[in-house]
Amino acid sequence: MPQGKIHGVGLGPGSSDLMSVRAERLVRESKYVAYFRKKGGVGRARSIVEGMLRDDVIELPMEYPLTTEISFNDPQYNQLLNTFYQQCTDYLLALSHANYDVAVICEGDPFFYGSFMHLYSRLTDSGADVALVPAITGMSAAWSASGSPITWGDDVLTVLTGTLPEEKLLEHISNTDALVIMKIGQHLDKIKRVLAAANKLDAAFFVQYAAMENQAVMPLKEVTEKAPYFSIVLVHGHGRRP
Amino acid sequence: MPQGKIHGVGLGPGSSDLMSVRAERLVRESKYVAYFRKKGGVGRARSIVEGMLRDDVIELPMEYPLTTEISFNDPQYNQLLNTFYQQCTDYLLALSHANYDVAVICEGDPFFYGSFMHLYSRLTDSGADVALVPAITGMSAAWSASGSPITWGDDVLTVLTGTLPEEKLLEHISNTDALVIMKIGQHLDKIKRVLAAANKLDAAFFVQYAAMENQAVMPLKEVTEKAPYFSIVLVHGHGRRP
Repeated sequence: MPQGKIHGVGLGPGSSDLMSVRAERLVRESKYVAYFRKKGGVGRARSIVEGMLRDDVIELPMEYPLTTEISFNDPQYNQLLNTFYQQCTDYLLALSHANYDVAVICEGDPFFYGSFMHLYSRLTDSGADVALVPAITGMSAAWSASGSPITWGDDVLTVLTGTLPEEKLLEHISNTDALVIMKIGQHLDKIKRVLAAANKLDAAFFVQYAAMENQAVMPLKEVTEKAPYFSIVLVHGHGRRP
Repeated sequence: MPQGKIHGVGLGPGSSDLMSVRAERLVRESKYVAYFRKKGGVGRARSIVEGMLRDDVIELPMEYPLTTEISFNDPQYNQLLNTFYQQCTDYLLALSHANYDVAVICEGDPFFYGSFMHLYSRLTDSGADVALVPAITGMSAAWSASGSPITWGDDVLTVLTGTLPEEKLLEHISNTDALVIMKIGQHLDKIKRVLAAANKLDAAFFVQYAAMENQAVMPLKEVTEKAPYFSIVLVHGHGRRP
C-alpha cells in the first residue's frame, strides 16, 4: 500500500540560514507542514520558517494541552501528553495513509531533547515511513557564539538539564572537563550555587538566543534576571592543544 | 585598516545537503578556500564540497606535517603541530591583511573537537576578523541514523573520546544515562571491554559514516573489524517520556 513520507525536519538553533540545505528544501517544497506550539502561541519552529512556506501550504499546528500548569511529576501530566501525542500521531498517519508527504518542523535537533521523538517512536511503531533530518543543536550555536571551543583533545563533555536535583548536578559538574547545561529557566539560582560549589562559577558563561538576532553572551555570575527558554550555560574544556 | 574576513565554516557530518544554508553560500561564493588535509590526501572537508567551488577558486590546502607517525605524548608532536598551525595562521593573516576574505572549510562542527580551533585562537589573538559557522556534529548524524533519540527528559549525556585511559572511561560510562564515544579507531577493544564492565555493551550501537553514502548502524558487540575514522559509539538514554 502506498503511503506518504513523514519527515522530522530539524531546523537548528533559530536562524533560518543555519538550517541545513536539506531542511530548507523540505520547508520550501512541502505542501503539508506540521509543528508543535503552545496554545495560542505562534510556535518557535513556525516562526523560524516565516516567509519560506509555499503559497498553498496546509499548516497543521499541534497545540500542547499544557506547558507548565501541571508538574511533570503529576500522573495527569503524563496522561494528558500521552493522549496528545497519540492524537498527533493518528493525524499524521491519516495523512500518510492518504499518500500525502508531511514535514514536521522542529526547532533544534529532533533526537536531542526534542519533542518530535515522542511522535517518532509512535509513528515507527505504527509502520509509518519516517525520515529524520538532523540539525545544528542549540548548544553548538551557543559554544560557537561564546568565542571559545567547547572541547579540545580528549576533553570529556557532559550535557545536563537544569531540572536535575542539586546533588546530582554537583556530582556531574565536579567530574567533567567541558559542560553544557540546558533547560535553565527557573533553575538559574540552583545552577549558580552548584557551579560555585564545584569551583566553576567564574569559568561559566551564559548564552541566550544563540544564533538569533538578540544573541547575548555573558559571564554567568553577572546574570541576575530570569533566564529565557533559549539559554544555555557553558563551561569550556581546556584539554590538549599544540 | 581594512582587512578581509576569515570564515571558519563547519560543513557538518559529510553529506553536502546537510551543510547549513549559510555554509553552502560561503562555499559556493568564496574565492579563497582553505582546508586541512593529510599529506598526499584529498582532505575530508575538500571532498564534501566537490563540485561546489567557483571556477576561479584559489584553493589553499594546509597539509599536516604528521598524523599518527608520532605519539601526541612526544614533545616533538606539539612542537611540529604548533609550528604548522602558526604557519597556517600567518598565511591566512596575510590574505586578510591584503583585504581578501577566506573560507576555511572544516568537516563537523568547528568548535567541537575540530582542528580549526587551533587556528581560531591564534587568529583572534592576532586581531583578525573571524566568523564561525556552526554545523551539524557527527554525533547528531550518528544518533539520527540510529533510529532512536539519544536523550529524553532529564537524561545526562556524556561525550568521551576513545583515547582516554580505561579506568577513566569506566568511571564516566558507569555514571551517565546517554553516551557518545568519538575517536574510536584502534581503541575499539578497550571500549568494548569497558562497556561490558559497565553492563552497557548490549545496549551500545556502532555507527559508521553517518549521513554518508556508506552509512551503517549495528550493535557494537557485532563489530570485530578495525573501526574507521568516521565511527561513533552510542548508548541511548531512556529518560522520562509520556
